[in-house]
Amino acid sequence: MKENSHIGNYQFRVEPFSEDVTGQISWGHLGNVLLRCAQFHAEGCGFGFGPMSRERLSWVFSRLILDFPNGRPRTGDDYVVSTWASTIFRQFTTRLYEVRRPDGAPWGHVYSVWALIDLQTRQPMDLMALPTGSFSDILEPVPADFPITGPGRIRVRAAVPVAERKVCFTDLDVNGHLNSIRAMEWVLDIFPLERFQGSGLRRVEMAYAQETFGGERLQFFVEEREDGICDVELRKAGSGTVAVRAQLLF
Amino acid sequence: MKENSHIGNYQFRVEPFSEDVTGQISWGHLGNVLLRCAQFHAEGCGFGFGPMSRERLSWVFSRLILDFPNGRPRTGDDYVVSTWASTIFRQFTTRLYEVRRPDGAPWGHVYSVWALIDLQTRQPMDLMALPTGSFSDILEPVPADFPITGPGRIRVRAAVPVAERKVCFTDLDVNGHLNSIRAMEWVLDIFPLERFQGSGLRRVEMAYAQETFGGERLQFFVEEREDGICDVELRKAGSGTVAVRAQLLF
Repeated sequence: MKENSHIGNYQFRVEPFSEDVTGQISWGHLGNVLLRCAQFHAEGCGFGFGPMSRERLSWVFSRLILDFPNGRPRTGDDYVVSTWASTIFRQFTTRLYEVRRPDGAPWGHVYSVWALIDLQTRQPMDLMALPTGSFSDILEPVPADFPITGPGRIRVRAAVPVAERKVCFTDLDVNGHLNSIRAMEWVLDIFPLERFQGSGLRRVEMAYAQETFGGERLQFFVEEREDGICDVELRKAGSGTVAVRAQLLF
Repeated sequence: MKENSHIGNYQFRVEPFSEDVTGQISWGHLGNVLLRCAQFHAEGCGFGFGPMSRERLSWVFSRLILDFPNGRPRTGDDYVVSTWASTIFRQFTTRLYEVRRPDGAPWGHVYSVWALIDLQTRQPMDLMALPTGSFSDILEPVPADFPITGPGRIRVRAAVPVAERKVCFTDLDVNGHLNSIRAMEWVLDIFPLERFQGSGLRRVEMAYAQETFGGERLQFFVEEREDGICDVELRKAGSGTVAVRAQLLF
C-alpha cells in the first residue's frame, strides 16, 4: 500500500465484547468499523456529509462486499484499515478498503459503492455537482492486484420464503431506513450456526436495492448453489419488491 | 466527580452511523461503549479477564440499568464516560457509570452488576478469591447523590407471548450466549416506533437470569402499568424458564 494523502489509514484493536462466537471480530462490528473509516476519510477530504449537516445529505451503501478468505482478526489483535475513493460515476462512488495486520499482511479487502441521498427529496445527488464541488481530485485508482471481483449477479428463483422479519426500532438508522449492517446480520442469521464454524463464512456481498422503512416486513428467499455460494433476496411482504440482494460464500 | 486513579474517564464522540432514528446515539451503541469502558477500566486495574485470557474467565452482566431522563448525546456530540467498581458481594461486583457533557453536566447514569464466569465449569467465580487476588482495594463508594435507584422487582403475569425470537449466529457473543446488548435491543423492539419519539424511552433495566444459547427460542411477555413502566420477561419456549427480565420507563 503506497503512502498517499488521499488514502486514509486507521488503526484499531479487536476489543473484548466485539467478537462473535468464533472469537473473531463479528461481521457487524467489522461493518461498523468500515462505516466509521469512510466517515473519517470523507470528512478529512471535505465530503463527509451526514443527515445532521447543513446540506441534509446522507451517504448510504449501494453495494458492500467483504472478502476475508482467511478469517478476521481476533480479540486483542491490532489491525489497520486503509480506505480510499476510486471512482465516481454519476450518482455512485466506489470506495475500497484494505484491512491489514500490523506487519502489512492483508486480512481482507472490501469493495463498496455509495450514493449520497438528499433527505428532502429522497433522491441521490449527482456526485459531479455537489454543493462543495466534486471530489474527483482525490480519487485513487484500483490497484491492479486488488483481489476482489466486483459485484456479481444475484438472482433467486425461490418462491417460498425461509424467514420473515419486521423492521423495528433498533433496526433503523438515522435516515429511518433499515440499517445496512443490520440487514447484513439478518442475511447471516438465516443460516444455521454450524455453517459459521471451521473455515466458515469467507465473503459477503450486499446489494441495497430499495429503501426499507420501519414497520415494513421483509421475506427471505434463498438459493444455494453446489459451490458453497448462497444467493439471498429480501423482498417486501405484499409487493414482492426486492429490497436487498445478498450473496454469501462459505 | 472527584478525580481519582480508581475512576476511569474515557472520552468519546457520537459518530455518524451510530445514531438511531431519533438522531441520538442508539441504545445498542451506547451499551457497547459501556462494555468497552468496563474493559478499559478493569484492564487498567488488573482484573480485565476475557475468554481469550489464560484464566479462561469472562465477565458477564447480571444487571444493567441505563437512566437517561433527558435524552442521549447526538451526532457529533462529545461526551465523557466515567466508571468505577463500587462493591463486591460474593460472586457479584457493582460497576457504576456517569455519562457527562464536556462541561460536566450529566447526560445519564448507569448501574451494572457483573459476574465473572469460569468458562470450563460455567460457574461464577468467588470475587474475593481470584487467581490475581481480589480487587477490593480499588473500590470507590456510591456517591450519596448518585441518582439511580437500584434493581427493582420485575414480574410479569401475562401468559400469552407478544413475540418469539430464535437465537441466531449474530445474536451470540464469544461465550456462545445471547449477547446482552442484543437482548436489550430485542426488548425495545417489541414496542411500536411511536413510543420512541418525543421524550421517548428514558430508562432501561435488564436482569440477565439464565444463559441462553444458539438455537434456543425466547418468548416475550409484557405487562404495562399505568405510569409508563413496562415489565418484560423473556422466557425459554418449552420450559418457560425466565432467561431475561426487563423494565422500561417511557
